[in-house]
Parts: sequence; structure tokens; C-alpha cells
Amino acid sequence: MDFSELDRVLCHVYHDCTPLLGQGRLADYIPELARVDPRQLGLCLHMNDGTTYCYGDTEVPLSIQSISKVFVLAMVLPRIQPYFERVHVEPSGDPFNSLVQLEYENGLPRNPFINAGALVTTDMLMELEPDAKGALLRFLTRLNRGRAVTFNEQVAKSELDHAGRNRALAYFMQSFSNIRSSVEELMDVYCHQCAVQMSLRDLTASFAFLANGGLSPTTGEQVVSRGDSKRINALMLTCGFYDESGEFAYRVGLPGKSGVGGGIATVLPGRFTLSVWSPGLNSKGNSLVGMRALEMFTARTSASLF
Amino acid sequence: MDFSELDRVLCHVYHDCTPLLGQGRLADYIPELARVDPRQLGLCLHMNDGTTYCYGDTEVPLSIQSISKVFVLAMVLPRIQPYFERVHVEPSGDPFNSLVQLEYENGLPRNPFINAGALVTTDMLMELEPDAKGALLRFLTRLNRGRAVTFNEQVAKSELDHAGRNRALAYFMQSFSNIRSSVEELMDVYCHQCAVQMSLRDLTASFAFLANGGLSPTTGEQVVSRGDSKRINALMLTCGFYDESGEFAYRVGLPGKSGVGGGIATVLPGRFTLSVWSPGLNSKGNSLVGMRALEMFTARTSASLF
Amino acid sequence: MDFSELDRVLCHVYHDCTPLLGQGRLADYIPELARVDPRQLGLCLHMNDGTTYCYGDTEVPLSIQSISKVFVLAMVLPRIQPYFERVHVEPSGDPFNSLVQLEYENGLPRNPFINAGALVTTDMLMELEPDAKGALLRFLTRLNRGRAVTFNEQVAKSELDHAGRNRALAYFMQSFSNIRSSVEELMDVYCHQCAVQMSLRDLTASFAFLANGGLSPTTGEQVVSRGDSKRINALMLTCGFYDESGEFAYRVGLPGKSGVGGGIATVLPGRFTLSVWSPGLNSKGNSLVGMRALEMFTARTSASLF
Amino acid sequence: MDFSELDRVLCHVYHDCTPLLGQGRLADYIPELARVDPRQLGLCLHMNDGTTYCYGDTEVPLSIQSISKVFVLAMVLPRIQPYFERVHVEPSGDPFNSLVQLEYENGLPRNPFINAGALVTTDMLMELEPDAKGALLRFLTRLNRGRAVTFNEQVAKSELDHAGRNRALAYFMQSFSNIRSSVEELMDVYCHQCAVQMSLRDLTASFAFLANGGLSPTTGEQVVSRGDSKRINALMLTCGFYDESGEFAYRVGLPGKSGVGGGIATVLPGRFTLSVWSPGLNSKGNSLVGMRALEMFTARTSASLF
Repeated sequence: MDFSELDRVLCHVYHDCTPLLGQGRLADYIPELARVDPRQLGLCLHMNDGTTYCYGDTEVPLSIQSISKVFVLAMVLPRIQPYFERVHVEPSGDPFNSLVQLEYENGLPRNPFINAGALVTTDMLMELEPDAKGALLRFLTRLNRGRAVTFNEQVAKSELDHAGRNRALAYFMQSFSNIRSSVEELMDVYCHQCAVQMSLRDLTASFAFLANGGLSPTTGEQVVSRGDSKRINALMLTCGFYDESGEFAYRVGLPGKSGVGGGIATVLPGRFTLSVWSPGLNSKGNSLVGMRALEMFTARTSASLF
Repeated sequence: MDFSELDRVLCHVYHDCTPLLGQGRLADYIPELARVDPRQLGLCLHMNDGTTYCYGDTEVPLSIQSISKVFVLAMVLPRIQPYFERVHVEPSGDPFNSLVQLEYENGLPRNPFINAGALVTTDMLMELEPDAKGALLRFLTRLNRGRAVTFNEQVAKSELDHAGRNRALAYFMQSFSNIRSSVEELMDVYCHQCAVQMSLRDLTASFAFLANGGLSPTTGEQVVSRGDSKRINALMLTCGFYDESGEFAYRVGLPGKSGVGGGIATVLPGRFTLSVWSPGLNSKGNSLVGMRALEMFTARTSASLF
Repeated sequence: MDFSELDRVLCHVYHDCTPLLGQGRLADYIPELARVDPRQLGLCLHMNDGTTYCYGDTEVPLSIQSISKVFVLAMVLPRIQPYFERVHVEPSGDPFNSLVQLEYENGLPRNPFINAGALVTTDMLMELEPDAKGALLRFLTRLNRGRAVTFNEQVAKSELDHAGRNRALAYFMQSFSNIRSSVEELMDVYCHQCAVQMSLRDLTASFAFLANGGLSPTTGEQVVSRGDSKRINALMLTCGFYDESGEFAYRVGLPGKSGVGGGIATVLPGRFTLSVWSPGLNSKGNSLVGMRALEMFTARTSASLF
Repeated sequence: MDFSELDRVLCHVYHDCTPLLGQGRLADYIPELARVDPRQLGLCLHMNDGTTYCYGDTEVPLSIQSISKVFVLAMVLPRIQPYFERVHVEPSGDPFNSLVQLEYENGLPRNPFINAGALVTTDMLMELEPDAKGALLRFLTRLNRGRAVTFNEQVAKSELDHAGRNRALAYFMQSFSNIRSSVEELMDVYCHQCAVQMSLRDLTASFAFLANGGLSPTTGEQVVSRGDSKRINALMLTCGFYDESGEFAYRVGLPGKSGVGGGIATVLPGRFTLSVWSPGLNSKGNSLVGMRALEMFTARTSASLF
């Protein structure tokens, strides 16, 4: 399928999805997120040669939330060897969340994309970088072609006020020596990383190195090695959508990561980066309309890993 | 990388792996499998155009064991709609095996490749085919370009003698109405499907439709639709290697399925089918040398989904 | 409190409970039990000197169901040494039933009163007695002062038709070598033991040896040793009421065992045996009115272990 | 058995146990406890009329650790209605500790004697008493016939330094609104309550109200109602010895509570309070020699609830 054809499908998907807007629920535990207009939808397709197609609300700043876990992993993975002595790479598969497994497995999280694993990854970043928050913003700004990326401080503050369960996870892993920073400092960094805000267009461009063997097609920088890019994609495919990861692989078939802000970023390695944003969530915490849009797109274009 | 280059890498991998032979343990709960010479290794690469490269023990009949789950799924998936009301598609991720999750989820197995899910799939086959064993052999013989495929009756008998846990799973799911045949008849079919024997070369050719959008490159038959081929591959990537599925995706990055006979069949969709056989197993029940061989091959060729 | 006073309280409890009749649900998975008139209530207090007070429906044959587990344990415990290599003595405490724990603990049930533990106990009886069903009836008839005790064959047949989960448990434990009889024969014995029927008056008299250090106050036979009587009572207190055992100890404070037929038998060691029957069950599977009656009786008489 | 006979058995048990001293392991996560001489043993039997028999090391200050949970529960239970909306009363029965169950049950601990339940109980005390630590010392001093009871501040500090897992539990329950104080203040009170030190003789006298329907036989004070005394005893019997509670009921048959300092306090309601102290622990965290001593004593005297 050539580019213009992909663009045409994307445009149709956008229009077929707009009637669904309003379905789903906003993440209501963070007041800032609960106040977002739910009837928004953005779609952004970024080909590896830089060609970009955007439909809908792609310039609005959105809260990237758990999508930040991918960026922090990309900062840490090349520099911590072996990363996987502290975090496993298996899907979690547990309908009850991760505390259970943490306990079975003596404080080693199942993978980097459940909260426990992301906390350990951020803890590693703090070991590498005295100013972890600053380092993250600099990394994202570089990926974003020099355009400044910022935290939404109000969102970060709301997150901190509702971080009880993450604090519990962190103290629990600290009791197994798998968190090494102070838990309060970790909470500060972690809640800020979740509160990064970017437009969907910028998010897509910044994410594109994973569609291109680790080399950013927008900046020409080798962000991570080809091997690490492959590993991050494998992890996104098996673990990127909480307890809906298998379903997403089965129906969509692209590596990706979602966040409770309603954003989803995916890649087809060697071809493109495809992102979508719509704030209403399904019962698993993934964007309801976003999932539908990705499913339509891959069904109509046969774009899939498989 | 062109064909001759892939062949060259395959040859090197074969020779680099032979010193490892003898590591790993034979599946010892089945006397027939425990008697196999552990110092065997076969590698078979089947390109979608039919070109085939074979190294080592690729003509010996091997017991395909759980790889049969893929074939039975391919028989059932196009004909039972919706298949996934009776089997989920999420990775199991449970260090303790599947009974726990069956119980949490009211008798619905997590995916078609854990034993519980495979039992339900075979149960569906029995609903579709009065002579399920015969239908399976006919299906495999067709995939195998008309060359007869058979059961090893001694292996089947050994399996039946050690089927206690599978019987437990079946009765348990029957109590949730998710097994509909008689449990004893189900055990008979299931233990026979595990006891299918084929040479690695034949197994590879028979598996090749999954590398080619569901169309067998050797027989020209559309075995399953493109969509179902994609779905089966997604399931193999997320669930094909028991509790080592994430690790396999992370290190190798190909959809595949392993069996306790020491066989592993994988595909790179659109390109090739790559199988390996070596009977010694690692602690997770997957071929120890086989896993290493696949890891070496993909690292050296950059062949990967990701 | 003297005898006439206990009798007076019992009479008041009976009358205070009759307005509650009709609450609760009949066990509906067994047609025979689902057909019982739910508006029945019997109370029977048997002092260790033989004095007996009966109120309500105490002459109707009732299905003793899980109360049979206590009798079978009393037959086996003195003769299998050490019993507890095959069954543990810890409360199960699992909101999900016992398969989970069986799996964690390699086929060793948590205690003799969950189904898995009762199945192993019956399996032991079958090792001791070629005609286990006959031996059980003879044992009960002896306890019942020579008055014949029988199985309700229709109930036994219904149980067998709905034994899927127990079959699953048995095959699962057989795979750990903790069930040694044929599973089908075990099911036959087990379903018959659950289908024993006795009037509440007879049940109470037969149970009375546990209130009297193992010596039956009605027949003068030393049924089990003082030590085993103490052990069975300890097990009833910690494990006799499924997931409501702690609650029962907390509110009532007597060792006892309930069955889904709506019967409950309890003892105050050294003093009396107190049984109650009312077929409507609460959400935990224990007689709803029966639990209330026992709670009232112990609150008003201060009869309690504690 | 009359008093002099009980005393004679106690004396024999003491001498039969001394050869076992040195077995077991000291709690090593707290430096203060790891430094205790392990070859100590004290036994103290306090009849309800005040007669007391003491053997061995009964005047040494010991760290009461989890036995404090009983005292705090006795302070809270009469004043918080209904206590059991925030803590259940079922045994935990989980080989893996309490986080798993907390998660299943939405932040409600299984019982007051696992750490999670004790933390909620201490949190309730803090709601009732602005100076919870002072209130606890005053309560204990009153029970101890006016003799001052104190915290070991070094032990308390060690506990605080190793409170990671308890902090995790507290933050986790706070995320379910089941902890209402500040977690850091809660840790301070909780670590101090564990660090209470008393001689075994004083501990026994202070515990004696639970053998006497809530009325302290040494001070004449009604510490808790008869009903609450019964409830606390039922909880100790079903939940007082971690994952060894069923075993303790089965072998010893007395309600009691152990602590990792090596102390165990038990009661036979209506008769006596029996305490033992020996610092070496078995694999379940209960005093190894202490458990043996109690088992010998009850076997030889037939003192038991059952």
C-alpha cells in the first residue's frame, strides 16, 4: 500500500471514529485529567521518511502518562547492564495487579511497563543522573527536534497526592533492595515523568526512533542501538497494554504503549509510527476510541507485524 | 540479507551449537521421549519461495508435542465463531501453572497454548469432526504435500498413562461447561495429537503457511485466512513459550511454538519458516540448544519482527 | 447454668428463629436438596450425661453432606500414622477455593475439611477397608446406638452427576500421587458419604463422642482416643465452616461442622453436643438460620470455649 | 489436675526442654534481638486465683513484639464499633504473606494479628488517643499492677530502620482509605508498640485478664467485656501463630499469641495464663523451644480447650 493510500485509510478511520466520541470514561482519579474535553480525537501517522499525516486534535497538549515509561526505558536500557537483573521481561497476565507477583518473585517486577517495573527503571535513571527530571526533559526535547517539552506541574502535583499505591510498591521493593533512591524523591521524579505533556504530533515524532531501528528519522540521532530498539518493541508488544496486551497483539498486531491520558503510540518497525489520542478510556484503562481506530486502520491496510 | 547469506549464517549457527549438545534434560515423564538420543540437532530454514536449507538431524521422526496445538488451532479457528468466547488471548504470566487462573476466570483458559486452552480447542475440533484424530492426520498430510503423517502409538499410550493433570483440567472445565465431549474421549484425541511424529523437514514445510499469510507456499492451499494467520502469529509471539514467552520475544523476536520433544517452529511473516530440534530441555521446558540457535541466528541476521 | 436453664434458652432461641425461616437459599446444584421444604428448623442439645432436648424438625431425615467428613476422619485418623503427611491442618483462608492452594503445595490439601482434604481422607479409608461404603454405614450405625443409618441413593446419584470439580481435584492430586484409589471408585464412595441421611436427633447422638473426649456417651465405646478427639475438635474450630470459620469462632466459639444440607453439628467439650438444621443457606454455604440460632444460644448462655 | 500437680508437670517440662536450648534461629533483622543470648528459657503459669509458678528466665526484660498486637486490640475493640468493618476475622492461610490478600480484598486485612490488621488497629488507637504511645504505656502499666512498662528505644529505632514492608502495607491500605493517620506517625507508634519490654512474669500477669472473662485477676479491673474477651481468644486461636495457627491449635489447643522476640502467651479460659520465652525461632517465626514446651505441658496435663 503506498503512502497516499495509507493517508486515505487514515482519513476514513478518523471520520468513522468521530461518531464514537463520548464513549468511555475519563481517568477520574486525577482532577486535571478528569477536566479534559472527552470529545477529542487525534490521529497521526509518521512515515520513516518523515512524511506525516495528521487528523483531528493533534496540536493540543496531552498528558502522556505511561507512554513516558518507554522514553525512560530508552534512556536507561543502554546504560545499565544487565538491566534485567532488576526487572523481568514477562507479561504480567494477572487480573489482580502487580503486588501479588512482586511478592511471589521477591521484589522483581514482571516487566518494565507495569508500575513496579517502571518505578525500578526510574530509580535506575536517578542512579545515572543526579538531576533525573532535567535529564528526561533534555532527552525528550532532543527527540522533539529541539522543541521544548515540559511537565504539567498541576498534573504532577495531583499524581503525587494520589500516589499511595505507587508508594506502597516502592517501599515494598525497597524492602527487597530493588529501590535504591529515597522513596519520596522517586515519587517526585515518577509523578513528573507521568505528567509530561506534548502534542500528539510531537509525541509521534519523538517516538519514531522505535520504528527505525533506534535511529530517529527526524533528528538523525541513534537514540538506542538496533538491538535495544528491537527489545523495547518486543516488550511493548507483549506488555504494553496492561491486561489487554494479548488482545491488542491479536486484534491490532503492532508494538505500542498506552497511557491513561488517552494516548497510544505504536510502531510498525521499518515503516511508520502511528499515534492516536482520545481521552475516554475502556474498562482496561486504554483509550476506547483509540483502540478502535488502530484496529480499523490495521484491518484496512493489512499493516501488521504478523 | 540475501538467501545465500542466510544459509551461510545458518551453517555457522549449526556448527557453533554442536559443542553445546548434551546440555539440558530430556522430558522424562514419557518413557519414549526419555529414550531419545539427546545429542541431536537439526535446523531447517524454509523460505516462502520454497527454497529450503537443512543442517543436521532433519530427517529423523520427532515427537511434535505442543507444536500440534498450532495445527489444531488452525483447523478450528476459521470454523468456530467466536472462538474466543471459550478461550482468552492473554499471556498467562503465572509461575504456577494454569489451574489457578482457570479458577479465577471461571473455567476460561487464558490462551490456546496453555494446556487448558489446547484442551478446549481439541474439544471444539471434536464437535466439528466425528473422527477428530483422522481429520487431524488428513489435515497434516495435506499440509505435508501428501506425505503421510502418523501418530506414534507408544508415545500416545505413555501420554495417556500420565494424563492425570490434564484430566483434572478437563474435568474442572467441564464443571464450568467449557468441555463438552466426554473427558476420556478428549484425553484420547489430545494424547494422540501430542504424539504426532514428523521429520523436522516435514514439520517446517507444514508450518510454512503461517509465514505466508495463511497460504501454504508448498501446496498453494489457503489454509487459513490472512487475518487468522495474523492472529495465530500474534498468539504464538505472546504465548508460544510457556513462562518464557516474553524472554523469547525479547531475545529472538519471532512468533513460534515449542514442544517438550525439543522441537521449535518459528516464522518471520512474509519471509521464512525456521525450525530447530534438539531434545535437551531448559528449566522452562523449551529446547535448550534450540533456543540458543534461534537467538544466534536472529542476532546475526537481524531477522526479527521488531 | 444448669440443665433446665439451658433448655429454657434453647426453647426461646427456637421461637425467636422461626420468624426467620424462608431466608437463605437451598443448595440448588443437587435436585434432591433443592426440593426440600426450606421452612424447617430443628435444634437438638445432647448433654454428656445423655439428657437430650429437642425442638422443631428433629425427626426428619436430613442429608448430612460435609458433616460426614468428620465421621470419616474419625475412622481414619487413629489408623493412619502419620495422617498429616498427606493432609495439612491449616485453615485455607482462600476466597477462591482449594485448587489454587493444592497447586502451591504440590497436591497436599490444606486441611481435612476442604473437599480436597476430605477426598484424600476417603481415599485412606478405601486403603483400610475393601468395602468402604459398608464400613462407614457400620461405623455410623454403631455410633447411632444400633439404629440403621443409610445412604439416600438418589442424592448420591445426583452428587455423582455433579462431581466434575471433585473429579478434577482427585485427578490433580492423583498426579501428585496423593490419591491412590481409582478416581471413579473414589467418587462413588465420596458421593455416598455425602448422601448419608439421619434425623437431627440421631446425628446429634452420633456426634456426641467429640464432646466427651472420644468416648461415646450413648454407647460407652471409646470411638477415638482423647488426643484424637482434641485434634478433631481443633480442626473443626479452625476449619469447619469453609471461609466463615474465623467468623464462626469469633461469634459462636464452638468447634463444629456444617453441610450444604443445612445441618450444623457442634460440641462444647466436656459438656454437650448441640446441633441445628435449617435448609436455607447463607452466601458462604452455611445454614443461615442455623448460624443465627447458635449465635443466640451461646450469647445467652455464655457457653463457649473462650 | 490440682495446682501442685500442674506445678510438678511445669517443672518437668522445664527440665526436659533445657537440653533443646540453642536450637532455632534468632530474629536477625533487628540487631538488638540478634544479640540476645539464645540459651534462655522461661516458663510462667499464672492461675486465675493469682497463684504463680515460674521456672527459668522469667525476670529478664524481653521484647514482646507481636504479642503487643493483643494489648492494642484490647484497647481498641471495646471503643470502635464496628471494628470489623475495617479488619476481617478469618485466618490468613496464605503461605505468601498478606499483601496478596490485601489486594484481593480491597485493603481490608484478613485479621488483627497479621501485620496489616495490626497496623489498622494501631491506626484506630491513634484516632482515639492523641498520644497513642503514652496511652499504651499507661494501659500496660495498669495491667501490670502499677509497675512501669517501657519501650526499648533502641529496638524501636531498629524496627523503624527495617519497616519497609510495613510502610508498603500502610501506604497500600491508605490508598484504600483504610489507614487514616500519617504513615510516618503510624510507623513510629507501631515500631514502639513492638518494642515494649517486660519480664515474662509481668507479661503473664498483664495477659491474665483474657483467662478470666476480661477481668484482670491481679488488679480486679474489667479490662474488656466478657464478650470481647471471648472474641479476642477466638481470634488468637485461629490466627495467633501466623501460618502455624492450625498446627498450634491441633497440637496445643490453647488460644495464644507469639512474637519474634521468642515470647508466647497463652490462656486456658476460666483456668490459667501460661507463658513461655525462649529466643530461638523455628522456620515459621515462632519460638522453637517455646512451642515444644507448650505441647509437652498440654499433652501431660490434658489442659486444652478441646
